[in-house]
Amino acid sequence: MGKAIYFFGAGHADGEHSQKELLGGKGAGLAEMTRLGIPVPPGFTITTEVCNEFYASGGKLTDALKTEVAATLERVSAIVGTRFGDAQSPLLVSVRSGARASMPGMMDTILNLGLNDTIVAGLAAKTGNRKFALDAFRRFIMLYSGVVLEVPRDKFEHALVSARRKAATDLGIDPSRYTSAELERKVPDSKLDEPALEQLIAEEKAIVLKETGKPFPEDPMEQLWGAIGAVFRSWHNPRAKVYRAMHDIPENWGTACNVQAMVFGNLGDDSGTGVAFTRDPSTGEKRFFGEWLPNAQGEDVVAGVRTPLPVSKGGGDDANSLEVKMPACYTVLVDIYQKLEKHFRDMQDIEFTIQSGTLYMLQCRNGKRTGKASVRIAVEMAREGLISEKEAILRVDPSSIDQLLHPSIDPNAPKKFLARGLPASPGAASGHVVFHADEAERLAGRGKPVILVRAETSPEDIHGMKAARGILTARGGMTSHAAVVARGMGKSCVAGCSSIAIRYETSEMHISVYDSAGHPAETVVVKAGDMITLDGGTGSVFLGAVPTVPAALSGEFGVLMEWADKVRKLRVRANADTPLDARTARNFGAEGIGLCRTEHMFFDDERILAVREMILAGDQAARKQAVNKLLPFQRADFVGVFREMAGLPVTIRLLDPPLHEFLPHEPEQVAQLAQTMGVSRDTLQRKVEELTEYNPMLGHRGCRLAITYPEIYEMQVRAILEAACEVASQGVEVKPEIMIPIAMTKKELLITKELTEKVAKEVFDQAGRTLEYHFGTMIELPRAAIMAHELAEPAEFFSFGTNDLTQTTLGISRDDAGRFLGAYVEAGIFAKDPFQTVDVQGVGALVEMARERGRKTRPNIKLGICGEHGGDPTSIDFFGKAGLDYVSCSPFRVPIARLAAAQVALKLTGAKNESSST
Amino acid sequence: MGKAIYFFGAGHADGEHSQKELLGGKGAGLAEMTRLGIPVPPGFTITTEVCNEFYASGGKLTDALKTEVAATLERVSAIVGTRFGDAQSPLLVSVRSGARASMPGMMDTILNLGLNDTIVAGLAAKTGNRKFALDAFRRFIMLYSGVVLEVPRDKFEHALVSARRKAATDLGIDPSRYTSAELERKVPDSKLDEPALEQLIAEEKAIVLKETGKPFPEDPMEQLWGAIGAVFRSWHNPRAKVYRAMHDIPENWGTACNVQAMVFGNLGDDSGTGVAFTRDPSTGEKRFFGEWLPNAQGEDVVAGVRTPLPVSKGGGDDANSLEVKMPACYTVLVDIYQKLEKHFRDMQDIEFTIQSGTLYMLQCRNGKRTGKASVRIAVEMAREGLISEKEAILRVDPSSIDQLLHPSIDPNAPKKFLARGLPASPGAASGHVVFHADEAERLAGRGKPVILVRAETSPEDIHGMKAARGILTARGGMTSHAAVVARGMGKSCVAGCSSIAIRYETSEMHISVYDSAGHPAETVVVKAGDMITLDGGTGSVFLGAVPTVPAALSGEFGVLMEWADKVRKLRVRANADTPLDARTARNFGAEGIGLCRTEHMFFDDERILAVREMILAGDQAARKQAVNKLLPFQRADFVGVFREMAGLPVTIRLLDPPLHEFLPHEPEQVAQLAQTMGVSRDTLQRKVEELTEYNPMLGHRGCRLAITYPEIYEMQVRAILEAACEVASQGVEVKPEIMIPIAMTKKELLITKELTEKVAKEVFDQAGRTLEYHFGTMIELPRAAIMAHELAEPAEFFSFGTNDLTQTTLGISRDDAGRFLGAYVEAGIFAKDPFQTVDVQGVGALVEMARERGRKTRPNIKLGICGEHGGDPTSIDFFGKAGLDYVSCSPFRVPIARLAAAQVALKLTGAKNESSST
Repeated sequence: MGKAIYFFGAGHADGEHSQKELLGGKGAGLAEMTRLGIPVPPGFTITTEVCNEFYASGGKLTDALKTEVAATLERVSAIVGTRFGDAQSPLLVSVRSGARASMPGMMDTILNLGLNDTIVAGLAAKTGNRKFALDAFRRFIMLYSGVVLEVPRDKFEHALVSARRKAATDLGIDPSRYTSAELERKVPDSKLDEPALEQLIAEEKAIVLKETGKPFPEDPMEQLWGAIGAVFRSWHNPRAKVYRAMHDIPENWGTACNVQAMVFGNLGDDSGTGVAFTRDPSTGEKRFFGEWLPNAQGEDVVAGVRTPLPVSKGGGDDANSLEVKMPACYTVLVDIYQKLEKHFRDMQDIEFTIQSGTLYMLQCRNGKRTGKASVRIAVEMAREGLISEKEAILRVDPSSIDQLLHPSIDPNAPKKFLARGLPASPGAASGHVVFHADEAERLAGRGKPVILVRAETSPEDIHGMKAARGILTARGGMTSHAAVVARGMGKSCVAGCSSIAIRYETSEMHISVYDSAGHPAETVVVKAGDMITLDGGTGSVFLGAVPTVPAALSGEFGVLMEWADKVRKLRVRANADTPLDARTARNFGAEGIGLCRTEHMFFDDERILAVREMILAGDQAARKQAVNKLLPFQRADFVGVFREMAGLPVTIRLLDPPLHEFLPHEPEQVAQLAQTMGVSRDTLQRKVEELTEYNPMLGHRGCRLAITYPEIYEMQVRAILEAACEVASQGVEVKPEIMIPIAMTKKELLITKELTEKVAKEVFDQAGRTLEYHFGTMIELPRAAIMAHELAEPAEFFSFGTNDLTQTTLGISRDDAGRFLGAYVEAGIFAKDPFQTVDVQGVGALVEMARERGRKTRPNIKLGICGEHGGDPTSIDFFGKAGLDYVSCSPFRVPIARLAAAQVALKLTGAKNESSST
Repeated sequence: MGKAIYFFGAGHADGEHSQKELLGGKGAGLAEMTRLGIPVPPGFTITTEVCNEFYASGGKLTDALKTEVAATLERVSAIVGTRFGDAQSPLLVSVRSGARASMPGMMDTILNLGLNDTIVAGLAAKTGNRKFALDAFRRFIMLYSGVVLEVPRDKFEHALVSARRKAATDLGIDPSRYTSAELERKVPDSKLDEPALEQLIAEEKAIVLKETGKPFPEDPMEQLWGAIGAVFRSWHNPRAKVYRAMHDIPENWGTACNVQAMVFGNLGDDSGTGVAFTRDPSTGEKRFFGEWLPNAQGEDVVAGVRTPLPVSKGGGDDANSLEVKMPACYTVLVDIYQKLEKHFRDMQDIEFTIQSGTLYMLQCRNGKRTGKASVRIAVEMAREGLISEKEAILRVDPSSIDQLLHPSIDPNAPKKFLARGLPASPGAASGHVVFHADEAERLAGRGKPVILVRAETSPEDIHGMKAARGILTARGGMTSHAAVVARGMGKSCVAGCSSIAIRYETSEMHISVYDSAGHPAETVVVKAGDMITLDGGTGSVFLGAVPTVPAALSGEFGVLMEWADKVRKLRVRANADTPLDARTARNFGAEGIGLCRTEHMFFDDERILAVREMILAGDQAARKQAVNKLLPFQRADFVGVFREMAGLPVTIRLLDPPLHEFLPHEPEQVAQLAQTMGVSRDTLQRKVEELTEYNPMLGHRGCRLAITYPEIYEMQVRAILEAACEVASQGVEVKPEIMIPIAMTKKELLITKELTEKVAKEVFDQAGRTLEYHFGTMIELPRAAIMAHELAEPAEFFSFGTNDLTQTTLGISRDDAGRFLGAYVEAGIFAKDPFQTVDVQGVGALVEMARERGRKTRPNIKLGICGEHGGDPTSIDFFGKAGLDYVSCSPFRVPIARLAAAQVALKLTGAKNESSST
């Protein structure tokens, strides 16, 4: 282990900004600010290595460390002129965690450490402010007891409420008329007088004795060891673990611990505290944006009891702005923030405290921002010359721009919250509630906006989903049918909203609405036709039509996309099944269609009957006849798609799902269909049962259908190539690619390729022209990846179907995984839902194996990916590194993919986002 | 290409027996017999290389070949003294296919080639037997037209029937009273007189002209080219393709073509023809066993119109035996067969023809035999010193001994055939039909033998399957639930019997019985309580109780097993869930239990309620309480198993199936259970729906249950270790191995291992003793194989669950695969059902990857396999080569596995079965 403690103070710091791994973000920021000559209260950082040592040794702090801490405290004393533990001139310190990555609120902080009864008296004498000293002590006891001694915070609540009640009565307020939260606003802690504070301190100490069996530690050094240990321990508290799992932060990073001389913003009206951003974190506008409170400690700003005031003028309350109230301090602050932004080359989130007219900086870090702000800041900083275009590209989290591409709820509109589900597909949408797909289509046809509400959706609901503005389901996860289809359509969707109970019989849903404490407060009944609003970005459902704000693709957004396109190597295609989807995709910058699913085309009312005839056909002749009824429809679909994608490749996947997906399963529907089709109910029912599968995902589907019923693929190939010839004859460039699903053997491909070539010859002979087309396969089964060297003989391209490849490699059904995937992520078994972010170790290994083996046979084989992962930035990073040629994703995610593709290209060439690691 | 033609005749042969690849089995046999000085009509073999050349050139025979054939025919002429195409002294030839492996009846043969009108007259003159000559010609035209000219055989049928009718009338028989089959027996072809034959020849020629548009070829050389081409083409006829697919014969082997001088067994009473085996092919007894017909051609013996006579005395009709009728020929034949068996060191299947008192050999090859005969012959030959013990081991096809281990239908008993399904689990069984598992258990409890008949079975039927003598299902394949469980229990099972329709409402089944032509002949109604008999070895179902013959594990069988055990390296364990299974397994020689499934124990009446309580429990406490009710049952199960397996390892797999398998799904059953459990029907129904999965195979099962409900595995581990301690305290050696299903990450194993160790500590503390146990995992997901290096950190052993690994690697649901696997095997996509024989390229690659990676982390990791493949000889061959430590299979397949394991061990050390390649 290297150096354990890094001192900072009075213009000198042992550490520097590049040492974040060792010092954590906060420690590195404090060191760097100190080096820059910015006023920072002195202190020191205990390294993350010590934290890891602490865990390795089972939770012990060594004597050597204690000696060094004591010595470093002397250096701090030398600067501030007070001494830790000295009753006459006491030095108080804060003890804060600080990991390499920001984990806001996840770990623990202790303020005002170093107080006991004697020292409080000294502090009172020294500051001439006994109330301040007492207030600091009672805050310290409560914080310390909670964090270090693990006394639950609510144990102290009663004492605090009593003190407030007493203070209220003293102020002539009847406390019995208010809830405790109201009372806290009426009687802020500053209204507690000295006797009240003394009483509170005594009560707190009594509570500690009762709860822990030991008196509150009076020795400041003992307090400090306890606090340092608690900070290290907090790295493993449950909140922190979940946060790390969510944000891919490795456990072995550990946290640093910062011990710093306290400065007080609550010493009077010439003191204060505040937070600010160097640019607007919401819009990205270049203006200094912050809030402050006079005579307050940091936690008061966060607590929200007092309303903070603007730092700068132009923020609504100019008279109370820091700029007006303390112009000298403000000038210093402006100077500092400009220096910091220039130095760190990114928008900064800063914390400051003014103690008796002197400004101190307590923290600086890269500020969190909205997607919109992120784009604007990156582009503007590049234009200002602060960063390069490449850095600008690396600055924007691709996931964050999703919100830019959809309309959103007006944040200022009043709304009645109903329920929260999963944010399955972003965007806001209002409409009349309908419970059936047919009804959705009917009402939408009359121009009414509708929201389709279902327990869950199935392929039979597609037309209703298409007609609806948004989809709400009671069951299913982020990768349920509703979620996947809605994202593909770019439609708002809230899925798995378990607090709603749908009663189809009475066309209503019952929603249990919970109060803020999580208890059911009321049951709201929403009937068909009532208006609701979905916020697919947050998963919220509101009653009525809440006003929305349209997507504003700002000018900076377009600029950023242009820059991204210049550097990326991965092509970006879209998954699009219809001419409309294709147009949307092209507008978003798609460079082709990577997956055109032909089965969605089968669900249209006019067609589904022919599909069903085909399924019920007793022999090949009857089947062929039924199939051929579909030919003109499919051809027309493809004509439209090819026209939209003129000049760009279009990969069309032949029929994939098992046939039973096209038959109804409910008895009434079966009866009705039997009548329509003129067959007996029994016959139809038997067929339905015969086709029903135990595990349809692993069933008779994809090219397996072509082995048993070649006429389906024959018709589809004919439709594709006839459409291509038709469009080509109009002078439009067409680039069809025929893709076989679920293949795992060379032989399957040889059989389907022979069929394809036979049909192609017939079509070209008839059309009197030929055109180039490509034949390839999906890689969606482990065996296909393993046998890629053989599959690459007939296949000219591979498209990784990572949805199914994940299902089979991990043995997890996407539709059923909701029951345990949450627990899996929580237990740290998976860092993320493997259906959202590709499992690099397992699925990724097969992708790499297939790439290697496929290229060995056919060096120029084209490799793409068309699963949901194609729109996930982390996955795109992997696919880029794995050397694929393109990714294909939902049209609405194309810009995200373009950006993510640019980022991985930059990373591969060694470019770094030098600031994003602040 | 090397030499195209290999001559044989008069004691000289160009080829020899070792050249089977080039000459085919028949050609090599003829060459070898000629070399041995055995009388063989002279001829020559056109090599398999020529066949491949023929295909490569698109079906052409080269001029060079034609020249060489003509030259070689001259060599034949020189020996026999007749000339091909010579009208005075014609040489007739046979043209037969002959591939490297015997493919009986799959390819084509032409006899009497070289005849036309002129030559027939010459032949008549030379033999002085015009009727013989005409008969030879009309046979030749029909055979040649069918095989070479592709005129369907039935086109000739009418002419032949007319001739027979006329002959019948001439003989004073009224032909209108008989069917054509009966007529053929009444008027065998030998009764056709010369005018009838002449008439027939004329009609046949007319038919050929009409069907092909060309006259029948008169030029013998043209006939010969046609026949050679047809023999080569027959390699690709559909029958041959299917046969090759079934027997793993590569397409590129090709067939040789044998052209040989005809000898005639139908020249009078001093002529004849016959086939014989050098030992009894049914029992293996060392006796010369054959049949012959005087005055007949080879095809007459096969056609079955005349009843053949015994070759040797003691065969029932001594007076007509060859031994008595033609003692000189018989002596020659005995001499030859003894020479051949000694030379080829295996039981021979020989064909001979006696032409006017002279005996000729036409074929010799290793004889097909029953499993029983196979064992006896191998052991006796080894004892005779003819072969070594190792060769004896390699001589017996392990699959063939399956039939020895079960009772079988008495072949001589009269029986009424009802239906044929899949031979899902061997053995014969008779019993009363029952349609419900409960009823099966009830009646069996009263001592009645029952056959459980179901559309398909599910885990809820286990108790009924256990109680039944045999299981019959209307749906499902060789690896359906019924089939797998029945094989595990060693019970007869006929599965997927699609001609039966079960009506549960009326407790009867309707069986469509087909006539020999495949047309439905009648519908038999079998009611509950009626007696039926299953033959699980053939898939036949009979009405009534057909007498059976018990399994006779002959002394030779035991000897062979001993020899096998001496050489094998793979250990053989059994899959056994109960003490009874364990005992059976041990009796069959199992060296431990490789898979003890704990879930079957959950289905017992007393236990299922507690299981259901557990599932319905609202919280962990209630769940724990319900789970603990199961503890004593599980412990008792394990005590029994450990006792039976004293001193041997027992691998126990913790709960594997998804929980919904333990709940009823039919509305009535749900209602009934709700009442029993005192919950509302709605509550139960909701739970059932909530747990229902789209793809249960990929669902919430195996160790995923342990992540969400750790109390289940906790209970199971406790039951295992408490049982182990109890049994150990009685001085019995116990070797428990705890196995985690469906794991794919190290973390899952770490979590379950921690749980295991915690429980172990508690149990050992309480018992006051510790004992050694092992912790390991199944490898049944591709990801588990890929991550084997990590899984091997916590896991001390891997057991490959190749059933599930096949399902996931290939993306095929075992339960649903029946719909297309047949077509897949037929199309040559899979050589065999991958659930019966492991897919070496795909699944095998993952097994090898896991072995390699697992051993890298833990060099001494124990590797086994416990899927259905553990009892399949071809798969065992792979597992042996892959270096696993053991295979585990159904108790009844243990002997098969022991033998297969010995064979792979011998192959790995380079031992060869020198004769089996005859």
